[in-house]
Amino acid sequence: VEIRPDTTRELRKGAPEVIFAETKTGEQTIRMAQTLLAGTGRAIISRVPAETMTALQATFAEYETQVREAAHAMVIYQPGYVRKRSGGHVGVISAGTSDVPVADEAALLAEEMGCQVTRIYDVGVAGLHRLIEPLQKLLADGVDVLIVAAGMDGALPSVVAGLVPVPVIGLPTSVGYGIGGGGVAALLSMLQTCAPGLSVVNIDNGVGAGITAGLIANRVAQARKQH
Amino acid sequence: VEIRPDTTRELRKGAPEVIFAETKTGEQTIRMAQTLLAGTGRAIISRVPAETMTALQATFAEYETQVREAAHAMVIYQPGYVRKRSGGHVGVISAGTSDVPVADEAALLAEEMGCQVTRIYDVGVAGLHRLIEPLQKLLADGVDVLIVAAGMDGALPSVVAGLVPVPVIGLPTSVGYGIGGGGVAALLSMLQTCAPGLSVVNIDNGVGAGITAGLIANRVAQARKQH
Amino acid sequence: VEIRPDTTRELRKGAPEVIFAETKTGEQTIRMAQTLLAGTGRAIISRVPAETMTALQATFAEYETQVREAAHAMVIYQPGYVRKRSGGHVGVISAGTSDVPVADEAALLAEEMGCQVTRIYDVGVAGLHRLIEPLQKLLADGVDVLIVAAGMDGALPSVVAGLVPVPVIGLPTSVGYGIGGGGVAALLSMLQTCAPGLSVVNIDNGVGAGITAGLIANRVAQARKQH
Amino acid sequence: VEIRPDTTRELRKGAPEVIFAETKTGEQTIRMAQTLLAGTGRAIISRVPAETMTALQATFAEYETQVREAAHAMVIYQPGYVRKRSGGHVGVISAGTSDVPVADEAALLAEEMGCQVTRIYDVGVAGLHRLIEPLQKLLADGVDVLIVAAGMDGALPSVVAGLVPVPVIGLPTSVGYGIGGGGVAALLSMLQTCAPGLSVVNIDNGVGAGITAGLIANRVAQARKQH
Amino acid sequence: VEIRPDTTRELRKGAPEVIFAETKTGEQTIRMAQTLLAGTGRAIISRVPAETMTALQATFAEYETQVREAAHAMVIYQPGYVRKRSGGHVGVISAGTSDVPVADEAALLAEEMGCQVTRIYDVGVAGLHRLIEPLQKLLADGVDVLIVAAGMDGALPSVVAGLVPVPVIGLPTSVGYGIGGGGVAALLSMLQTCAPGLSVVNIDNGVGAGITAGLIANRVAQARKQH
Amino acid sequence: VEIRPDTTRELRKGAPEVIFAETKTGEQTIRMAQTLLAGTGRAIISRVPAETMTALQATFAEYETQVREAAHAMVIYQPGYVRKRSGGHVGVISAGTSDVPVADEAALLAEEMGCQVTRIYDVGVAGLHRLIEPLQKLLADGVDVLIVAAGMDGALPSVVAGLVPVPVIGLPTSVGYGIGGGGVAALLSMLQTCAPGLSVVNIDNGVGAGITAGLIANRVAQARKQH
Amino acid sequence: VEIRPDTTRELRKGAPEVIFAETKTGEQTIRMAQTLLAGTGRAIISRVPAETMTALQATFAEYETQVREAAHAMVIYQPGYVRKRSGGHVGVISAGTSDVPVADEAALLAEEMGCQVTRIYDVGVAGLHRLIEPLQKLLADGVDVLIVAAGMDGALPSVVAGLVPVPVIGLPTSVGYGIGGGGVAALLSMLQTCAPGLSVVNIDNGVGAGITAGLIANRVAQARKQH
Amino acid sequence: VEIRPDTTRELRKGAPEVIFAETKTGEQTIRMAQTLLAGTGRAIISRVPAETMTALQATFAEYETQVREAAHAMVIYQPGYVRKRSGGHVGVISAGTSDVPVADEAALLAEEMGCQVTRIYDVGVAGLHRLIEPLQKLLADGVDVLIVAAGMDGALPSVVAGLVPVPVIGLPTSVGYGIGGGGVAALLSMLQTCAPGLSVVNIDNGVGAGITAGLIANRVAQARKQH
Ligand SMILES: Nc1ncnc2c1ncn2[C@@H]1O[C@H](COP(=O)(O)O)[C@@H](O)[C@H]1O
Ligand SMILES: Nc1ncnc2c1ncn2[C@@H]1O[C@H](COP(=O)(O)O)[C@@H](O)[C@H]1O
Ligand SMILES: Nc1ncnc2c1ncn2[C@@H]1O[C@H](COP(=O)(O)O)[C@@H](O)[C@H]1O
Ligand SMILES: Nc1ncnc2c1ncn2[C@@H]1O[C@H](COP(=O)(O)O)[C@@H](O)[C@H]1O
Ligand SMILES: [Mg+2]
Ligand SMILES: [Mg+2]
Ligand SMILES: [Mg+2]
Ligand SMILES: [Mg+2]
Ligand SMILES: [Mg+2]
Ligand SMILES: [Mg+2]
Ligand SMILES: [Mg+2]
Ligand SMILES: [Mg+2]
Repeated sequence: VEIRPDTTRELRKGAPEVIFAETKTGEQTIRMAQTLLAGTGRAIISRVPAETMTALQATFAEYETQVREAAHAMVIYQPGYVRKRSGGHVGVISAGTSDVPVADEAALLAEEMGCQVTRIYDVGVAGLHRLIEPLQKLLADGVDVLIVAAGMDGALPSVVAGLVPVPVIGLPTSVGYGIGGGGVAALLSMLQTCAPGLSVVNIDNGVGAGITAGLIANRVAQARKQH
Repeated sequence: VEIRPDTTRELRKGAPEVIFAETKTGEQTIRMAQTLLAGTGRAIISRVPAETMTALQATFAEYETQVREAAHAMVIYQPGYVRKRSGGHVGVISAGTSDVPVADEAALLAEEMGCQVTRIYDVGVAGLHRLIEPLQKLLADGVDVLIVAAGMDGALPSVVAGLVPVPVIGLPTSVGYGIGGGGVAALLSMLQTCAPGLSVVNIDNGVGAGITAGLIANRVAQARKQH
Repeated sequence: VEIRPDTTRELRKGAPEVIFAETKTGEQTIRMAQTLLAGTGRAIISRVPAETMTALQATFAEYETQVREAAHAMVIYQPGYVRKRSGGHVGVISAGTSDVPVADEAALLAEEMGCQVTRIYDVGVAGLHRLIEPLQKLLADGVDVLIVAAGMDGALPSVVAGLVPVPVIGLPTSVGYGIGGGGVAALLSMLQTCAPGLSVVNIDNGVGAGITAGLIANRVAQARKQH
Repeated sequence: VEIRPDTTRELRKGAPEVIFAETKTGEQTIRMAQTLLAGTGRAIISRVPAETMTALQATFAEYETQVREAAHAMVIYQPGYVRKRSGGHVGVISAGTSDVPVADEAALLAEEMGCQVTRIYDVGVAGLHRLIEPLQKLLADGVDVLIVAAGMDGALPSVVAGLVPVPVIGLPTSVGYGIGGGGVAALLSMLQTCAPGLSVVNIDNGVGAGITAGLIANRVAQARKQH
Repeated sequence: VEIRPDTTRELRKGAPEVIFAETKTGEQTIRMAQTLLAGTGRAIISRVPAETMTALQATFAEYETQVREAAHAMVIYQPGYVRKRSGGHVGVISAGTSDVPVADEAALLAEEMGCQVTRIYDVGVAGLHRLIEPLQKLLADGVDVLIVAAGMDGALPSVVAGLVPVPVIGLPTSVGYGIGGGGVAALLSMLQTCAPGLSVVNIDNGVGAGITAGLIANRVAQARKQH
Repeated sequence: VEIRPDTTRELRKGAPEVIFAETKTGEQTIRMAQTLLAGTGRAIISRVPAETMTALQATFAEYETQVREAAHAMVIYQPGYVRKRSGGHVGVISAGTSDVPVADEAALLAEEMGCQVTRIYDVGVAGLHRLIEPLQKLLADGVDVLIVAAGMDGALPSVVAGLVPVPVIGLPTSVGYGIGGGGVAALLSMLQTCAPGLSVVNIDNGVGAGITAGLIANRVAQARKQH
Repeated sequence: VEIRPDTTRELRKGAPEVIFAETKTGEQTIRMAQTLLAGTGRAIISRVPAETMTALQATFAEYETQVREAAHAMVIYQPGYVRKRSGGHVGVISAGTSDVPVADEAALLAEEMGCQVTRIYDVGVAGLHRLIEPLQKLLADGVDVLIVAAGMDGALPSVVAGLVPVPVIGLPTSVGYGIGGGGVAALLSMLQTCAPGLSVVNIDNGVGAGITAGLIANRVAQARKQH
Repeated sequence: VEIRPDTTRELRKGAPEVIFAETKTGEQTIRMAQTLLAGTGRAIISRVPAETMTALQATFAEYETQVREAAHAMVIYQPGYVRKRSGGHVGVISAGTSDVPVADEAALLAEEMGCQVTRIYDVGVAGLHRLIEPLQKLLADGVDVLIVAAGMDGALPSVVAGLVPVPVIGLPTSVGYGIGGGGVAALLSMLQTCAPGLSVVNIDNGVGAGITAGLIANRVAQARKQH
């Protein structure tokens, strides 16, 4: 047996198993999706190559699905699957337009964990005025955690983390060329942040950022409910 | 004016300003500490060089202080300062004995943010049995977030994040020699984790890990209280 | 003369010559295979580009061959070639599904050196329970050496090496993106291992891992026979 | 002859020769200073080791000197030397207290090129409000060029360059530990800037930043005078 | 909203917004171009993929456009748009033929900022005699700033900066293979320059070099006019 | 509790626990040594700082000890401790004189695991004739595994692995300056080996090489005994 | 003018200008070739992309040409061009078959500089016996300088330089995968050589190795002739 | 036996054995020096730590010695030792004053190989006029090979190699700070050179540069004599 998806992860971890399709054959991905659907009623698939996407859509034509095109992600639901609402609230901010695919992957994961997700995209670092107002609204709405996606200089997460009283997850994206390109400068700059309360995931790891944010927000939501 | 500590950070961010003493003269550190004490009643100082430590202890002999020797950290309290208890609960795990100074720095920050901190030290990656039991107790006690400090191979945070339903903060330490030494392999391995819900801070950044954990735990605690 | 395969390696070294087809023209690979077949009765070819694979299959249609598709490897046998059984026993473990091609290359080499090879694939680092049982069976069966293939965080070989009393060969795979991706974090983490008895080969070097394991297992097997 | 300072640089380039004392013996530095004093009436010496500093002060006790302690820099003037005023105006901003030595080295060079230099130090990236006001005053005063010194995340120069209509020179400092430490993340982040009009010099190269700013400001000043 | 070009940048910064098309879909680029045209009368688009170029040319067939083929750049003008002349003068030098695309991108930006641009291309580092004469003419003509593009060894900017009394912007290009290839050695060598007055932008960042040079030249030109 | 040496490692793994003293206080090392002595009758301590060495010798003056000066290693035996002989045979080769400390650390570990160890030191890569004869004698004596320590170019392990029919463990040492210095080129060259049957440990990791060799040799020896 | 080949290089330097076609358009390469043919009677073109090769062959169908297929190189001669014989003698050794293209490029350059070139290819590092005999013949024939091309571990040049009394030029090739792959380990290992008299050029730089060897051999040959 | 200097290297290679004292104890260096003196009449010792230098001078007080202070090198001659003159001529150029120690080490080796050595030091890259004249004189005097030592930007060797018809050996020095510092940028820039006929040795490897130059010059000289 070459393929053993972790069907009990959600129960154990409160976070769903995600199929990483990039380095798998279409056939392997389909088989893993079937196992997950059978076990949990849902299959989340990330970094889906174009061919695999076509194969998945053909195979699961009878299922309810959602495709996040920019993020190359897909979710397949067992007929009748109902996504629970956790009460957690996650904000996802992107520095530029090029960061949107990765930000969207993060948003998808938080949503699939039951969170409400609010997006603020393409705020730039030179246009902080465009950020301040929606950010304040978000904080007023009681957002539990922020994900800030940025490539190139990676300065935005540090700026945001200097302003807000909630945990911030820095999500570097592989945008940028030359030395420090492909997200390296962005990641290093976030790791070197002067601002408190910023932790990071790897370059383009929207899945990791989304799950971490989901775990935090859901824990807070659970505390809200229990008391 | 060369020195302007951020005295309103705690109000704004829910996280204290911390003086980074390593690249400052003793005199600069003392002046910053005085400003912080005046503004907030407390000064937290990290990475204190031996000479500066002596100078601080002489200058603030009349104050209540606590020194974390391994972590080279010091906290000075205005007479009568009372540390509030937030109700948050943070677990700090270290892989080896050599990771203790960094783990201690993280613990200190979470404590100064009002959290209860439980330590599990020197569990090794080859001695997982030594980890399982105290970890289960910690989860049963309702810990809100875990910090896992590890140098060398940095495998422990991935292993822990695969087991627990709370957010985990990977804290790589500069332990290890040869290629990937000084914490580089540990950091990279954590960023490459297969386990969900692990975010990281930079090598030896106990301050960053402690504050992030404190923000998460305090937010959960606040939700517990408000409802 | 541009091409001189080492036809006496097997005699001298107890390890077969392997043709590395990736940076050779199809024609060069075919000529080398012919020389090896003539000299040793067998040609093992690794990292075969698609075109070369087709050319090889056409050229050696009359020969007995085996193709490891995932590993892009091929073995051609002189008619009547009989693979000897050495009595050595090698275990090959893979962390994920994406590591299987490299793990398979390693397994192939150990088999061609006459070893019995037992595979345990896709055990994850978050699913250690899936590992423990088959691993114990393997040890009970008297396995001589383990190869552990892992990409991304590369944590599994350290975990395994902390558990078993036989030598472990860490085989990093080029799985993973972002910083430390392409197997770099995995390799560094293995080199920084806290666990005793783990040595490593380069990223994706299934051939090297397989031959090293084969040499160890065969040496033990020989001692078993001689006494 | 081992030592040939470039005594005609100022005439040719409009920028002074600077003695880099770090990798020279005290004796070599003194001889170079003497040659420069004889040729140009002034010797600017950077990165002076403590011992060399003492030797310089003894040797040139009869001269007018100025020592920038934090920057480990010294300038020696021939008796009667009069520093010309160019009319150029340079602003020097530092992100933190630890960046001051490098910022000071840059300021010194611009001053020695005849510029008026205005400093704004320790503004932080989380305290932009502390920056906005003095920055606006500086622009109103007609500053020609800004130098922004920052270590760690290196985010400040990008933020400033997004706000001002004058050229900005990013000056990364070797502040920060862990991966991307020693100024590497700061430099890379500046090179990856999203903001227009930011060029950079190497880590801790206050001399280079100061001279570049001086050349720009003096050229503008000259245009002001000539017309 | 995913796309918010900075239409007021030119007013605020004196530098135009530039659309980075490489990591955007054709559709996103077209929408951004439309917004910019509406807001400022002009859209500058860099690093345009072949497909997007075709789409742009079809969409804006009615507009005045200019295409810099080597640089993969395009400018679209609102009918009746008149480019102002600032009076600034920028020199652009390239070491080799392979550096021309990047040098051309820089030249384009300076031109769009209203500068007169003089080019000296393919001067080599081994043919300095080919450089000296046109360079002297350029200085005699009163050039305000030089951009020097070079790949491989990156030696030319240091050589030029040792000769001229104006600020020099080093523009490393991704030319060269082997270690230090892709512009890395060129960038590092420029950052390590022994020559005064050289600042740099990232590899292949013609846009950044052009804007920085434009800001400097226009500031000098403005001073010339005002006085 | 901060210190928990793995006293059952030897039973479980067939390899001894080793105290890594470099990043521990003298006091911590002494306490760990005491625990190990109590649990296993022996304490092996590596990378002992000078001060800790003195403290150990004072504390354990009554014990039988052996000190490997070059390797900065020490072993302390409970009175009456008898080191068992396993029957395994390990060869340790060093390229140069400067590699001896690391080679000695490896030899020590293999000896403490009960192996017979034969050393061939300072053979150079330009003096292969000095290697051939003792190597042939070693093979004739039935050596089970070879460790080859080399710094600088790291060529020797590849050369040796091309000649011998036993597994070879490459042990890079931190000898060499300039690019690739500190053992990096040696390690990379070993990982890139053209020779079959070479696996490696990290730079200067004599402990890892010695234990791996010991595990291999002892397994062969055990097979010899059992049959 | 964008293209200015250095037509007087051969006179000035004793080394021919070589067109680097990889980063040029076909048209640019053809124009440069025409200029060189007109100026020197010969055009040497390296790293020719397939399309450019076709275009060159069509354009220069009337000329005498030679194509080195493996090396992707081409030489075009003016009708009646006679290559002079310098009397220099260069040996070119390759470690493996995959290094042949680069070795061939080096050989071509030395030949075009008038040298006699003797090749010894695919000697391996594990088959030194295959090297010794032809090497001794080469030395007996009075070879002036050796080029040794090797990828992967890069060990062969060090081994050869330890054996011969002539200067050796290490030519690393981009063969090898994993860490240190693409020629990096080979280059670093050569730079770290323990053997005297080995200098290196960059990875895959056959042109540089060939010209350096040609300059050395021709200088010796000239001395032979003049005396 | 731990120490076996290569006493027959000079005969075999035409290049002397050099003791690398940095990583040896004083005692080891003295023993090696004695062996070399006994075998060849001379001991050349490089990178001598201060303590070892003192010990050597005491031990060999009766011998003729020469000490190159800047280079930390020493040569000891057997009484009556006569250094032969080979007739070879080597030029050694340094870019700055800080490169002198390394340049001197190279010069020493060439001298000990019997060559005439001419030095041109501190020519800078901005002061090429200071270089041109002595360089032309050197070429007129018939120099056989040039060594060019440079740190920081490493531009000088490329400039020189573009001007001269003899082989040039680039000798990068560990001068320079910030990114690319410690000689890295210099080395990479030399490896990426646009100029023909430049080969390099590692950073600070004056020994390697001197021996390579000596081998080349002596071979030419030998040809001059024989004919
Ligand atoms: N896009 C992604 N980025 C990071 N991790 C992922 C991604 N998609 C899936 N994963 C995780 O990586 C692991 C992949 O393991 P496998 O599918 O067995 O190769 C799964 O357990 C997922 O949780
Ligand atoms: N602190 C510094 N950082 C960078 N460059 C410097 C510094 N100080 C001096 N320089 C320049 O570096 C060159 C050093 O050359 P030299 O003194 O000959 O070794 C001089 O031309 C200076 O202009
Ligand atoms: N010199 C050494 N190099 C590599 N690993 C070592 C060395 N000395 C001890 N170790 C191992 O590293 C681990 C150190 O863990 P600890 O002592 O808990 O910090 C132990 O389990 C040892 O087996
Ligand atoms: N300063 C130096 N830099 C580079 N190589 C050196 C230096 N000094 C000596 N060597 C060579 O490096 C080798 C050192 O080997 P060993 O002395 O056995 O460790 C000798 O063969 C020397 O030729
Ligand atoms: Mg945008
Ligand atoms: Mg431990
Ligand atoms: Mg899996
Ligand atoms: Mg501050
Ligand atoms: Mg050219
Ligand atoms: Mg030696
Ligand atoms: Mg071969
Ligand atoms: Mg100088």
